[in-house]
Amino acid sequence: MKNRTIGVALLGLGTVGLGTYRVLKAQRGEMIYKTGAQLLLRWILVRNKEKAAAKVDEPELITDRFDDILNDDQVEIVIELIGGTTVAGEYIEAALRAGKHVVTANKDLIASDHGRLMDLAKENGCDLMFEAAVAGAIPVIAPLKQSLAANHLSEVMGIVNGTTNFILTRMEQEGMEFGEALALATELGYAEADPTADVEGMDAARKVAIMASIAFNSRVSVEDVWTEGITKITADDIRYAQEMGCCIKLIGMAHSDGSSIEAYVAPMLIPKRHPLASVNDSYNAVFVRGDAVEDAMFQGRGAGELPTASAVVGDVFDVARNIVHECNARISCTCYKHLPVVRMEDVYSRYFLRVEVEDRIGVLAELADVFARHLVSVDQIIQKQRPISLQPSETRQESCASKAGQGSLCTQAESELPGTEIVVITDVVREGAFRRAVQCISDKKGTRRICSIIRVYTSDERMKAEGNRR
Amino acid sequence: MKNRTIGVALLGLGTVGLGTYRVLKAQRGEMIYKTGAQLLLRWILVRNKEKAAAKVDEPELITDRFDDILNDDQVEIVIELIGGTTVAGEYIEAALRAGKHVVTANKDLIASDHGRLMDLAKENGCDLMFEAAVAGAIPVIAPLKQSLAANHLSEVMGIVNGTTNFILTRMEQEGMEFGEALALATELGYAEADPTADVEGMDAARKVAIMASIAFNSRVSVEDVWTEGITKITADDIRYAQEMGCCIKLIGMAHSDGSSIEAYVAPMLIPKRHPLASVNDSYNAVFVRGDAVEDAMFQGRGAGELPTASAVVGDVFDVARNIVHECNARISCTCYKHLPVVRMEDVYSRYFLRVEVEDRIGVLAELADVFARHLVSVDQIIQKQRPISLQPSETRQESCASKAGQGSLCTQAESELPGTEIVVITDVVREGAFRRAVQCISDKKGTRRICSIIRVYTSDERMKAEGNRR
Repeated sequence: MKNRTIGVALLGLGTVGLGTYRVLKAQRGEMIYKTGAQLLLRWILVRNKEKAAAKVDEPELITDRFDDILNDDQVEIVIELIGGTTVAGEYIEAALRAGKHVVTANKDLIASDHGRLMDLAKENGCDLMFEAAVAGAIPVIAPLKQSLAANHLSEVMGIVNGTTNFILTRMEQEGMEFGEALALATELGYAEADPTADVEGMDAARKVAIMASIAFNSRVSVEDVWTEGITKITADDIRYAQEMGCCIKLIGMAHSDGSSIEAYVAPMLIPKRHPLASVNDSYNAVFVRGDAVEDAMFQGRGAGELPTASAVVGDVFDVARNIVHECNARISCTCYKHLPVVRMEDVYSRYFLRVEVEDRIGVLAELADVFARHLVSVDQIIQKQRPISLQPSETRQESCASKAGQGSLCTQAESELPGTEIVVITDVVREGAFRRAVQCISDKKGTRRICSIIRVYTSDERMKAEGNRR
Repeated sequence: MKNRTIGVALLGLGTVGLGTYRVLKAQRGEMIYKTGAQLLLRWILVRNKEKAAAKVDEPELITDRFDDILNDDQVEIVIELIGGTTVAGEYIEAALRAGKHVVTANKDLIASDHGRLMDLAKENGCDLMFEAAVAGAIPVIAPLKQSLAANHLSEVMGIVNGTTNFILTRMEQEGMEFGEALALATELGYAEADPTADVEGMDAARKVAIMASIAFNSRVSVEDVWTEGITKITADDIRYAQEMGCCIKLIGMAHSDGSSIEAYVAPMLIPKRHPLASVNDSYNAVFVRGDAVEDAMFQGRGAGELPTASAVVGDVFDVARNIVHECNARISCTCYKHLPVVRMEDVYSRYFLRVEVEDRIGVLAELADVFARHLVSVDQIIQKQRPISLQPSETRQESCASKAGQGSLCTQAESELPGTEIVVITDVVREGAFRRAVQCISDKKGTRRICSIIRVYTSDERMKAEGNRR
């Protein structure tokens, strides 16, 4: 056993920073057996030194000057837990240029700048690890790069945002509307004061960009990831999904046939028998398909002080092992392909459409006709028997107003005629064709409003069975 | 990119051997980008050369002499897929002594000889990897050694035998009896001609030994793992479990409080809300708890040609990376502790007991009294209302006969008096105390037979809440 001491610096002492500090402390007695080295925390970089000093046992480690770290030759590993893309990015670059290895949980930065930073790490013979950036505590990056490396992966999809999964679970299990469930999530600390990045799917999109890049060995940036959130999902949608043996999950989807990549975030109807369907509350999970592994799923805590720190310190230990064995950059960038990302309108999927129409003879036939003209094959079309009241309830008015505000295709035309609801499930169809059909339906006089459009998860087997290219 | 060629030899061309051959072929164009090396298959060792030649494209690689491989200096990685503990063990030892790295799927050998082989590998500066030995395609060993290394793990439990999970799933979903479900598993190829190692839990015990050793950094041999199979489980047990919101799974359990280890295989009642409860059919899953990660679960294919090969070739790629970066034995044996394994009678658990007694006043009170005298605290005691017929049906007779054959505590005493069934759920209790209470109940005149004894999964939180040491 070599008795190597490795200096470590921690940037940031927020939730994950403090968790990392604690886990490093908890592992102090064992890290030498696990890595061959004793890790020594030398600096903690913060903005407010006094506030930070109260949180740790060694206030003398606290600094507000990054140069203290950069100029300390004994610091070999920098742990970046500041977050965001500005100062964090500068620090990471400077650390790598100085030959210091970097471990980060910064999904914003990795999702937007993965390629450049990995190249920079490689040039400097450094490790750059970011397991904690995707799905918190759950090992995803390492399994994709190592244990599953002998696969041509076709699908990496997951529930990678705990806030939205908590909201959708409450909506499903307690019949809550979106707003109510969001309020509960905020109250319980599962949602941030500004929940936009979570509920609009941007947070999930960053993780999809990272997962897709690694799974398909081709760089996917967050800008390539088409994104739709869950703000339009209603309790009614979830009830319909349940009737069809499905639940609704916000899915981060990365799919590849080997020649191109599909990458998007959207709420989807998932069959109850799919492993992702039983992942509830704030849990995250990543489901993987490959030509050898068949399918596998990893689930666990996607966020939180100690779970995220588990992933961060796991990476730090791996870097330490590489230092001891002089093999840093042992696994560097694995993006050796240049696959195009498919435009969303060219993605094939099945769709769930719920539309409110005038209740008169011939409306159903008109709808079917629109789909036929747009070559959209319909799997099911159901006219719901429940009558819609002429005086919409306050809840329904609110729900529709909020939908309009979010730029939905909502056509509010409360006329005197009685309304009825039609639910359509399409076969596999190109998104562009489906959208044009929906626009056409939306423009029709008899259409009160497009209530919901939700994608329906379709396995590769079914895609193939239906003879559709993806 | 270094342009390194690494010679590989394959021992065995059975199901997994052929799968490995195929996956290596499928990855031929990409392995250099993934590992920095081109792997070149130089030998395939088989017993019957002619039979093997028909299976591969390069019959010239086939040999029946291990010395061809041992004496070939260009072979740097030996993939052992023969199985069993005799010749496979000799070959692995010889390969390691010759400085060749070894990848194996051999759970028998690793479970019984993990420590010695890891030491031998280390002495020779070699990698010895065995991801495929536990839960097939599912990454378990690598995550435990790397991504989750920053944890003190307290629990690693799982469904690690696909045959028994298939049988229990059919029993649950279709109300089949054990024999019927086993026959179906055999017919569909999920069970081997001699299913003993699977249904009696020995296969699972090997995986528990390996998982426990790695999770708790202390060597656990298969002999240390107390083992009970599923042959005594009846459709009735499963119905009772369902009434209680549980299912029955064959669980491989490894638990540690940091000072000792519990390691056993047994059917257990698992609450439906536990992630393992939704792992059905032939799928495997491993559930992990640690002080930082909280809980995580990995699920996927536990066996099969290509899934197992996925894990094997994933390891081969990792060894190749280590060769390229000259850091073999980078992660060697991690058993740096010497924790005792707790005797099963000292393990604490809750129990489900189903007993058939004479239907007369006072029987329930007598039972309660026995438990009280043995200091076994009872959570629930239920006298089932369904009357038991005086003329037992053919099925029941068979079931009881088969139980007697398997050495259960079955006390067959079909008397003239009407019988009734009592179900008891205990609080957390030491197994030894519980067993003595059951023996006492079994000896009582009014007891017809002990129908079932099944452990009830109890989380650490509940253990603590009940103030019980584990």
